[in-house]
Amino acid sequence: SLLSNQKVIHSKDQIILIETNLDDTTGQELSDVMAILLTNGAKDAWVEPITMKKGRPAHKLCLLADPTNSETLTKIIFEHTSSIGVRQQLLDRKIMQRDLKLLKTKFGNLHVKYLSYAGITKVSLEHDDLVSLAQKNKLPIKNLETKIMNLIQSD
Amino acid sequence: SLLSNQKVIHSKDQIILIETNLDDTTGQELSDVMAILLTNGAKDAWVEPITMKKGRPAHKLCLLADPTNSETLTKIIFEHTSSIGVRQQLLDRKIMQRDLKLLKTKFGNLHVKYLSYAGITKVSLEHDDLVSLAQKNKLPIKNLETKIMNLIQSD
Amino acid sequence: SLLSNQKVIHSKDQIILIETNLDDTTGQELSDVMAILLTNGAKDAWVEPITMKKGRPAHKLCLLADPTNSETLTKIIFEHTSSIGVRQQLLDRKIMQRDLKLLKTKFGNLHVKYLSYAGITKVSLEHDDLVSLAQKNKLPIKNLETKIMNLIQSD
Amino acid sequence: SLLSNQKVIHSKDQIILIETNLDDTTGQELSDVMAILLTNGAKDAWVEPITMKKGRPAHKLCLLADPTNSETLTKIIFEHTSSIGVRQQLLDRKIMQRDLKLLKTKFGNLHVKYLSYAGITKVSLEHDDLVSLAQKNKLPIKNLETKIMNLIQSD
Amino acid sequence: SLLSNQKVIHSKDQIILIETNLDDTTGQELSDVMAILLTNGAKDAWVEPITMKKGRPAHKLCLLADPTNSETLTKIIFEHTSSIGVRQQLLDRKIMQRDLKLLKTKFGNLHVKYLSYAGITKVSLEHDDLVSLAQKNKLPIKNLETKIMNLIQSD
Amino acid sequence: SLLSNQKVIHSKDQIILIETNLDDTTGQELSDVMAILLTNGAKDAWVEPITMKKGRPAHKLCLLADPTNSETLTKIIFEHTSSIGVRQQLLDRKIMQRDLKLLKTKFGNLHVKYLSYAGITKVSLEHDDLVSLAQKNKLPIKNLETKIMNLIQSD
Ligand code: NI
Ligand code: NI
Ligand code: NI
Ligand code: NI
Ligand code: NI
Ligand code: NI
Ligand code: NI
Ligand code: NI
Ligand code: NI
Ligand code: NI
Ligand code: NI
Ligand code: NI
Repeated sequence: SLLSNQKVIHSKDQIILIETNLDDTTGQELSDVMAILLTNGAKDAWVEPITMKKGRPAHKLCLLADPTNSETLTKIIFEHTSSIGVRQQLLDRKIMQRDLKLLKTKFGNLHVKYLSYAGITKVSLEHDDLVSLAQKNKLPIKNLETKIMNLIQSD
Repeated sequence: SLLSNQKVIHSKDQIILIETNLDDTTGQELSDVMAILLTNGAKDAWVEPITMKKGRPAHKLCLLADPTNSETLTKIIFEHTSSIGVRQQLLDRKIMQRDLKLLKTKFGNLHVKYLSYAGITKVSLEHDDLVSLAQKNKLPIKNLETKIMNLIQSD
Repeated sequence: SLLSNQKVIHSKDQIILIETNLDDTTGQELSDVMAILLTNGAKDAWVEPITMKKGRPAHKLCLLADPTNSETLTKIIFEHTSSIGVRQQLLDRKIMQRDLKLLKTKFGNLHVKYLSYAGITKVSLEHDDLVSLAQKNKLPIKNLETKIMNLIQSD
Repeated sequence: SLLSNQKVIHSKDQIILIETNLDDTTGQELSDVMAILLTNGAKDAWVEPITMKKGRPAHKLCLLADPTNSETLTKIIFEHTSSIGVRQQLLDRKIMQRDLKLLKTKFGNLHVKYLSYAGITKVSLEHDDLVSLAQKNKLPIKNLETKIMNLIQSD
Repeated sequence: SLLSNQKVIHSKDQIILIETNLDDTTGQELSDVMAILLTNGAKDAWVEPITMKKGRPAHKLCLLADPTNSETLTKIIFEHTSSIGVRQQLLDRKIMQRDLKLLKTKFGNLHVKYLSYAGITKVSLEHDDLVSLAQKNKLPIKNLETKIMNLIQSD
Repeated sequence: SLLSNQKVIHSKDQIILIETNLDDTTGQELSDVMAILLTNGAKDAWVEPITMKKGRPAHKLCLLADPTNSETLTKIIFEHTSSIGVRQQLLDRKIMQRDLKLLKTKFGNLHVKYLSYAGITKVSLEHDDLVSLAQKNKLPIKNLETKIMNLIQSD
């Protein structure tokens, strides 16, 4: 679903972090709302286990988003959880430059991210592609990952 | 203990988040200090499990407060935990408007928060009231909650 | 509320561990049910954060009890949570012998457990007593704890 | 996907718990292996956060299964994670009797579990059905849940 | 520190699991006691975050050991933590057969475990060896790991 | 390794918090990178367990540092973990004034921090010193801690 050869070249931007503590929302609902947030533009969403007042084992719901998306995502939280208030802050982000390529191998094609930042370079294989190639080739994922990483490092 | 018909009408404000990592404070002490912080004006207080340096399974103590309360609450942390430094930041908060009412039902009276934000509305039953009405009426809490929520939705 | 000079002299017994995973129960409900379990004879009750199937951030509810209490406590779990099945096992327990005394000090009286097991001895101050004596004497809890522990060690 | 009117009538059985600690397996891999375990007959699978030796923030992978499935699931763990040993134990399980029905409502059909154990009865709506009916009827999930639970309680 | 060519050939044994809940022990102390337990024969030791009664964010200390070591390790727990009772159980363990070799590569020597169980085979590089070879060769650990894994897979 | 009689007299400063979510980094690697970050100037580093998208039980890596160190530490994260982006923010910090002394006792010498903030004073024994004095004197750590704290409080 990603275009081959997409580039992200800026290495700094700003992102908004939105958080809310939930002691009246279930695990099922947390899983549902994370999916809805991601579908509606959140760049990341996650849950942290916390112990709240009155001895309540509860959760903190967190998300990162483009600042322009803040209001939309806040409304989703209010609609789909028991939250009655969220807190938010604008953060600086440093990101590795990303060059996304479609790599053709004898095992099949997979997306590879070539990452770089101030002279540091690394490579990240798209995990879902790796999983399906491993199934297709009847190889353990780890084995296939080693073989493909070795191909890339030998270039 | 809350007045009937109290309203919170602003939907934005600022709140201070204070945090400290603790590897030399026990669970008993964390529970004590959370209670003291809440008694002294913290709007929320919670603990997150973390793994600190030297392999220490430890805790992060967090609280939200009105900025004017920051100094008082910092001193409580220094007095009641092993913390030797706290970090703090001012956050924007978005909150649902709250209209608190005392609802009279055949099961007894309970406090209900009518919440709204940009066209989204929801209702929250005061949990402690629900627990005591459930005991009084010898009904499972969930059953009673359904019955009362249904009354409210049918209005 | 404890008698002075109570002794627990056996150092081995058996205890039942009951556990259930919950992805449809809130933090409020978990806190309520822990309290009910303890009131009804559970020797300990606690909650562990877990990640369940379908990406659900959920909880495992656990309790320890005398085997004769197993059925009563299982029913409480079924009544007060969304659990539809619990697992249980009989465990061996090794316990320190406990000699509970009421210690009279210039700060006031507090309960102290003298513990021993195979030549190892230690002393545990009743935490709630310590908290109230600290308040009464306007001393930090830690300071008072040191003073009282030192009295005991100097005996 | 569930048949209408399926019944589980026994209220006790035995189940095997398999566990392994993992400090060399990533979150991606843990999510993958949980899915594979469930596809291959595990009755439940979950992950607990732990702090292991050498200060490693790691995970415990756990599953419940029919004892006849133990060997198959152990092999999946060895194949798909870095585990080099698993521990297992046979547990007693108490389960509520389940009567699964397809409930026809004006909002659409959904699966409902009627649960009972020693005189305790409760009802559980199939969460995924509820989510899709809520979408179809453009109602918040919580609202729909209340309406349907009320229908059932009024029977 | 490991001999070359050590073999573990049995694939089943029994192991004892010892656990205790701690709400009056600090993270520093937990880290200390884990190290002492491992030095005194525990095969594994770890800590799980839990929420205990009275709203205490606390920890469960766990260890695996040879059953003959149970009493020694129990005493260490009683001596070095606030625990006044531990629970224990004998578990079945399934383990992969291990053949430990010292692998000579152009990057230096490192220990490698060749693991097998019922037809499944895998290879595990000793992590600490990998870390020191990476430093010596000024290579990122991941890169070196790929290169060495590829050497092994190509044999 | 610390000088006797070092003082920290300012009670406010600013510190940078850097965070990244990791679902493709192992516990071994997290432990390694925390050590490297601390060696390279991080003032604190820790890991929090989180549940990320696609049901991944993962970790958040966090560190505090002097703002001038931000770029160096970001590069270490990019080099030693799977992170492809970090977020950072400048926080206000309130810190207790610290007066570090080498205390001579009949048990041996140990470092002691005398801490103060707005009239609140407390004392912190260097944990590693305490551990080695306890070993040297064959005393339980807690006992020795009580004895030394009592010496200090009696001054
Ligand atoms: Ni593509
Ligand atoms: Ni992967
Ligand atoms: Ni009122
Ligand atoms: Ni409730
Ligand atoms: Ni008494
Ligand atoms: Ni205490
Ligand atoms: Ni656990
Ligand atoms: Ni639900
Ligand atoms: Ni490794
Ligand atoms: Ni010194
Ligand atoms: Ni956190
Ligand atoms: Ni200490």
